Amino acid sequence: MKIVDVAVTPIAFRDPPLLNAAGVHEPWALRTIVEVVTDEGLTGLGETYGDLDHLVHVRAAAKELVGLDVYHQNAVYAAVTRSVGADVVVDRHGLIGAATHEKTVDRVYSPFEVACLDILGKAAGRPVVDLLGGRVRDAVPYSAYLFYKWPGDDPYGAALDPAGLVAQARAMIDRYGFQSIKLKGGVFPPEQEVAGILALREAFPGLPLRIDPNAVWTVDTSIRVGHELDGVLEYLEDPTPGIDGMATVAARVPMPLATNMCVVTHEHLPEAIAKRAVQVLLIDHHYWGGLVRAAHVATLCATFGLELSMHSNSHLGISLAAMTHLAAATSVITHACDTHTPWQNGQDVVAPGALRFVNGAVPVPEGPGLGVELDRDALAVMHEQYEKCGVRTRDDGGYMRSFKPDWKRPVW
Amino acid sequence: MKIVDVAVTPIAFRDPPLLNAAGVHEPWALRTIVEVVTDEGLTGLGETYGDLDHLVHVRAAAKELVGLDVYHQNAVYAAVTRSVGADVVVDRHGLIGAATHEKTVDRVYSPFEVACLDILGKAAGRPVVDLLGGRVRDAVPYSAYLFYKWPGDDPYGAALDPAGLVAQARAMIDRYGFQSIKLKGGVFPPEQEVAGILALREAFPGLPLRIDPNAVWTVDTSIRVGHELDGVLEYLEDPTPGIDGMATVAARVPMPLATNMCVVTHEHLPEAIAKRAVQVLLIDHHYWGGLVRAAHVATLCATFGLELSMHSNSHLGISLAAMTHLAAATSVITHACDTHTPWQNGQDVVAPGALRFVNGAVPVPEGPGLGVELDRDALAVMHEQYEKCGVRTRDDGGYMRSFKPDWKRPVW
Repeated sequence: MKIVDVAVTPIAFRDPPLLNAAGVHEPWALRTIVEVVTDEGLTGLGETYGDLDHLVHVRAAAKELVGLDVYHQNAVYAAVTRSVGADVVVDRHGLIGAATHEKTVDRVYSPFEVACLDILGKAAGRPVVDLLGGRVRDAVPYSAYLFYKWPGDDPYGAALDPAGLVAQARAMIDRYGFQSIKLKGGVFPPEQEVAGILALREAFPGLPLRIDPNAVWTVDTSIRVGHELDGVLEYLEDPTPGIDGMATVAARVPMPLATNMCVVTHEHLPEAIAKRAVQVLLIDHHYWGGLVRAAHVATLCATFGLELSMHSNSHLGISLAAMTHLAAATSVITHACDTHTPWQNGQDVVAPGALRFVNGAVPVPEGPGLGVELDRDALAVMHEQYEKCGVRTRDDGGYMRSFKPDWKRPVW
Repeated sequence: MKIVDVAVTPIAFRDPPLLNAAGVHEPWALRTIVEVVTDEGLTGLGETYGDLDHLVHVRAAAKELVGLDVYHQNAVYAAVTRSVGADVVVDRHGLIGAATHEKTVDRVYSPFEVACLDILGKAAGRPVVDLLGGRVRDAVPYSAYLFYKWPGDDPYGAALDPAGLVAQARAMIDRYGFQSIKLKGGVFPPEQEVAGILALREAFPGLPLRIDPNAVWTVDTSIRVGHELDGVLEYLEDPTPGIDGMATVAARVPMPLATNMCVVTHEHLPEAIAKRAVQVLLIDHHYWGGLVRAAHVATLCATFGLELSMHSNSHLGISLAAMTHLAAATSVITHACDTHTPWQNGQDVVAPGALRFVNGAVPVPEGPGLGVELDRDALAVMHEQYEKCGVRTRDDGGYMRSFKPDWKRPVW
């Protein structure tokens, strides 16, 4: 089952003005769609980041895969590794963790692996979850992912204070049924965000709550906030930068710490575990090298007593399907996963119907492979948007400075 | 693809009088052969231990698997877990490491997982190595596994001194082409075994050497021997019992320590890694929960800088095929694997031809699934041998005492 063609298509879709520690989301979010085609005529889909540095590598790697067998993932990984060479792609916006060579390879490899699993599932007439050991849950719970935000062309309106957050949560939960809540913080001084969390606690007394300031709090601030939110948070996500900082905070706050920033590749795991820096890893197949490699990492975490949740960047339905298959097969993911799906407000490259939310959870797609079909018209429109929008690398800070020229990433 | 039947057949085959720290191999070695049959008529093979305590669990678990889907390994594992209940099966002969509940479950699950992978490979027309990511090597190197031994009904004769070991090694290498050597030690006082290793070093100057006294040396003895064999050993395997003892030795000897005794299940890994007790893990899918779970453990070891080799008990061709597929797909296994195959002297439950040694390595079987076919006549003969031989649980010590009534497990 040989790969005979790989199409790589960058796309752009509308994104609301979501605020975070790095600035504000630009009007266009970027992704890259990968289509792997085999000599038997099967096609598999993958989805990854759209930033140009990354896209260049994905395109280069795609050329190296023609002729390889879909089953031979070790050979595909080796080809990607050779293609990437010694390069390290840095996430300039600073929201998704440290950059390393291994992470660079794993990020480039991931969409191809997902596409190959899509093909193998189609060939076997089986959903991808079955290639990962079969489902341990029929639907994967996701969290309501709240953002402070400016008003935009979306159904949620502005959210710049506790009341705005509560209204946003209520609208999102009404629509999707989420049963836990994550707040992207790091936007306002910590006391304002603590007030936001407490307002959410009061409005949704039964729902687990998390806050993620993307490591813009000092160690002292993190510890103070940790105590202020004692008994309120399910976990505190990336309050402060670095493994040492997280370890200091972890030893002195009452709740677990989670991360998708200080532990993002294998070389971080030994130190973070030795220092007890984190208690929850937010796994993400987009940078942990695809679904199978992410499953290996999940086993490692479970062996060392780390709990698992799942990280999300702005994404579309191919990624949501992949995330759902992975989480459905991985018993040690015990926290609701993150997703940006509500913020895409129905925009997608996959045909409607395969993915839906029921009480905040996505039922595992039933069809073979990922269970989603590419909507070629939507892909063409989004690719045209990419060509025209002018955005080539996510730059939340630059966009923020177009409104507030003296803005800089905060440290509280 | 539902399981409609599972056959569990205990067998016995002739075993030479191989000496070890637990006594001497009885004339019959026991294994259990598992055949999983699906509603589509495909059959998969698995092989595991034959000790009665284990066999009882394998038989009980087999009944629980009917109706499950071959792809749904998480469900198969859950069914085995329920079937085992709270039981812990202890390896009474004390050669293959600590007993835990998780290890008990993983041991019972393993042959079913291998059989299901055999089926999935056959269904896809693919070798099992492809289900594990595809080959990173075309053939898997094994080591010449030397034993001190009494004369027996085998081609190797006695080996009770350095000259006997060298002759055994030469005969085995002539026949199989092995390019590394492992000596099962713990039989004679350490100085005699050091002399044996030094004789092997002189006779085979280019070949990596290992010795495994099965943890019958004290910490002080282990350190002394470690220094005496500085520059001679590839690694020193299980010189002394327990993670703490191994850690003390590891800190004071010049070569890596390997284990299949103090780290045999997930709960041992964090402590052993934190204490730097071992540098090489001898993986074994028979007690690490099958091929996929063993591959997860291999990733974990690589993340923490542990090297990998592979452990062996007396086994036949189904296990050799499974071991070969796993090692062929696992790049982080960098040492030659152990196998008892030469000691079975051609006895097997699989039809000849699929497995062979070329320069000490087994080429990955090319056929679908494991690539081996059950020889039903051989199975029937070996099952009859099981019924008649009277051995139900391996007892090297009891057999040794039938010759030397006052024999007991040594401590040097």
